[in-house]
Amino acid sequence: MNDSKLEQYAAFMVRSAVNVQKGQTLIINSPIEAASFARLCAEEAYKAGVYDVVVHYSDEKMARIRMRDAAVEALEEVQPWRLRSYMDYVQTPGGACVLSILARDPEIYKGLDTGKIDRASVALERAMKPWREQTMGNRLQWSIASVPSEAWAKRVFPGKDADEAQRALWEAIYRVCRVEQGRPEEAWRQHAKAAALRVKKLQEMELSALRLQSENGTDLTVGLAEEYQFAGVEEKTVAGIPFFANVPSEEVFTAPHKERVEGVVKSSMPYVYNGNLIEGIWARFEKGRAVEYGAEKGEDLLRQMMDTDEGAKHLGEIALVPASSPVRKTGLLFYNTLFDENAACHIAFGAGYPGTVKGGDGMDREQLAQKGLNDSLIHEDVMVGTEDMEITGLSKSGKEWPVFQKGEWAF
Amino acid sequence: MNDSKLEQYAAFMVRSAVNVQKGQTLIINSPIEAASFARLCAEEAYKAGVYDVVVHYSDEKMARIRMRDAAVEALEEVQPWRLRSYMDYVQTPGGACVLSILARDPEIYKGLDTGKIDRASVALERAMKPWREQTMGNRLQWSIASVPSEAWAKRVFPGKDADEAQRALWEAIYRVCRVEQGRPEEAWRQHAKAAALRVKKLQEMELSALRLQSENGTDLTVGLAEEYQFAGVEEKTVAGIPFFANVPSEEVFTAPHKERVEGVVKSSMPYVYNGNLIEGIWARFEKGRAVEYGAEKGEDLLRQMMDTDEGAKHLGEIALVPASSPVRKTGLLFYNTLFDENAACHIAFGAGYPGTVKGGDGMDREQLAQKGLNDSLIHEDVMVGTEDMEITGLSKSGKEWPVFQKGEWAF
Repeated sequence: MNDSKLEQYAAFMVRSAVNVQKGQTLIINSPIEAASFARLCAEEAYKAGVYDVVVHYSDEKMARIRMRDAAVEALEEVQPWRLRSYMDYVQTPGGACVLSILARDPEIYKGLDTGKIDRASVALERAMKPWREQTMGNRLQWSIASVPSEAWAKRVFPGKDADEAQRALWEAIYRVCRVEQGRPEEAWRQHAKAAALRVKKLQEMELSALRLQSENGTDLTVGLAEEYQFAGVEEKTVAGIPFFANVPSEEVFTAPHKERVEGVVKSSMPYVYNGNLIEGIWARFEKGRAVEYGAEKGEDLLRQMMDTDEGAKHLGEIALVPASSPVRKTGLLFYNTLFDENAACHIAFGAGYPGTVKGGDGMDREQLAQKGLNDSLIHEDVMVGTEDMEITGLSKSGKEWPVFQKGEWAF
Repeated sequence: MNDSKLEQYAAFMVRSAVNVQKGQTLIINSPIEAASFARLCAEEAYKAGVYDVVVHYSDEKMARIRMRDAAVEALEEVQPWRLRSYMDYVQTPGGACVLSILARDPEIYKGLDTGKIDRASVALERAMKPWREQTMGNRLQWSIASVPSEAWAKRVFPGKDADEAQRALWEAIYRVCRVEQGRPEEAWRQHAKAAALRVKKLQEMELSALRLQSENGTDLTVGLAEEYQFAGVEEKTVAGIPFFANVPSEEVFTAPHKERVEGVVKSSMPYVYNGNLIEGIWARFEKGRAVEYGAEKGEDLLRQMMDTDEGAKHLGEIALVPASSPVRKTGLLFYNTLFDENAACHIAFGAGYPGTVKGGDGMDREQLAQKGLNDSLIHEDVMVGTEDMEITGLSKSGKEWPVFQKGEWAF
């Protein structure tokens, strides 16, 4: 791994992606394998003038032991300190921001009881909801970085040994995160500008729905929420601080209306759910609800996901990603949603982002529901984009706009 | 490292040292470097029927960055979740027990502002006091294990490379923790029995004080607390569950009376305080208080330690360790109090253990103070034993009992 690239990546994540502000406390969520990267980020954050850095380490091998050996009742009990380990900082005078580092083994829970995994993760989501409202509602800056763990790297490059695989995954990460050429801040400024232009054009179309069509059988009409707001690459907190929530980020996205999705959709890439793979997902929607669905592999998992709550069967996000995306161009399957969702257009089952409704970051969930924004304990992105995908914008006035042609932006 | 030894060590720590009970939650404090040992312990604990295992990972390299780069005000602020991350489990129906794994670099804070370190650690001690009362007061089972980190091993074996040093330190740990011969449970049962016999004999002497003398100039008379209770190797929680608080453990110890210590004492080994070394400590006591003191190296640190609070200048523990202790016989300086305190007789500045006063585990700090037990935010063991140490028991009736002759038990 190239140390100077690593330092540039850390500096970019802290200063541009999270965009730490003087006096804030930076919370870093890090797997123990990524400790040296977490330390680089902490040093950079102090240099940038944060008040403090708090690191929450996690260990997925330990998580697997616990998931396997603890009773489900123990897994469902989430002690209050877990939420407070975030909210205590939100409540400080300087406030908080958060950087989550991912290095997941995509199949960490392979072979374990999926019902148990599901109950445990729902309980955790429920307990942590006030914190998730902070991030999903852009009450503070948040971002996600990735560091290749051995298990993850070997999954992406099964033919290579651990060292080679990790090196190759680092290179792929630098490439798709625009760190490879040096000066990532500058590259991202350009990238954000281009996305902002597309957002502007899409808003001007005054759409009521987007229709996605592909030769694989997808024909889905996604009605948009009232006063939907497109967004992409750069986001802003309610206080107006810009940040990049996802690195990489190739998507322009908005809010479906939870009751106005019709038609059939097929997934175009495997999806990692709770440490297990689901492949070949299909779903048929009526009035916004997935009334029929299935999968070629992992259908039981899909059913559990859909059964989380009523909102899990409705959509919270529609995201547009061209087939020429640098992530797709690597030709890799990353087995990591943060990357794979940037390789293809996708829909998300579950909660929508308040920021994808005008003024939504200041609204409560009831107000957002009135605009048609979906709510749920989950937010699970399923990739549906293909190289032949056609997307048509249906305007409120009856006009049809070409949005994607043959998998690429039409404007 | 020998895997079967490692597994035996983990099983011993969980089942015999902590002695986990069915239905309890085991809290494991672990440095990230010791994750694989922590996982072994977690697996063993689930096998033994615990309700749950919670792991709090720490990263001392990150701690050093924070100690160096954060403002002292930030370091002094300890958010409520930190205490709750322990107390939440104490308050569950099954209750808690705790295993702390040490792998410290003895000089992790070398070169940093010692005043800042001191303020930070005092603030942390203060915030965590309710939790420390749980362990020091034997309200629950607690124990400490050690795993060689690279930094620690290289400090103990400066001539060896990292791998060799870690292997050598593992061997030394297995030896002094009585794991080397296999069946550590059995070895510890014998060991605890021998210590219990010494405790019984010492109690029968009906002592008022212990006088420690050495050719290095030590001549210290340590008056004992009212209704002092000797203890050693095996301890019991207030509910009667036996456990081994320290592994290794070669000491028989009791409570000094905080106002009845007179004379001069000299340290016989270096001492690690807050990630820095103090060497050649001396102190002169009057009416229990260290009225004069100094050190050949690290005297400023010693002064900070003594200035923590009034109790820091008084003694909380007097512990008897023969010169033939297996720890001393290794000929190693471990730069780790858990080991080094078991190589020599020692005194502790700061808080005494409630269990070293009869019925003390059920008393509050005010009641304990009436018995003469010292209180403080700190508890710092300073090794004073030498190979020529003579210890005399002064009985309430005026009789003198030989306790140590030439560094060894006299009975």
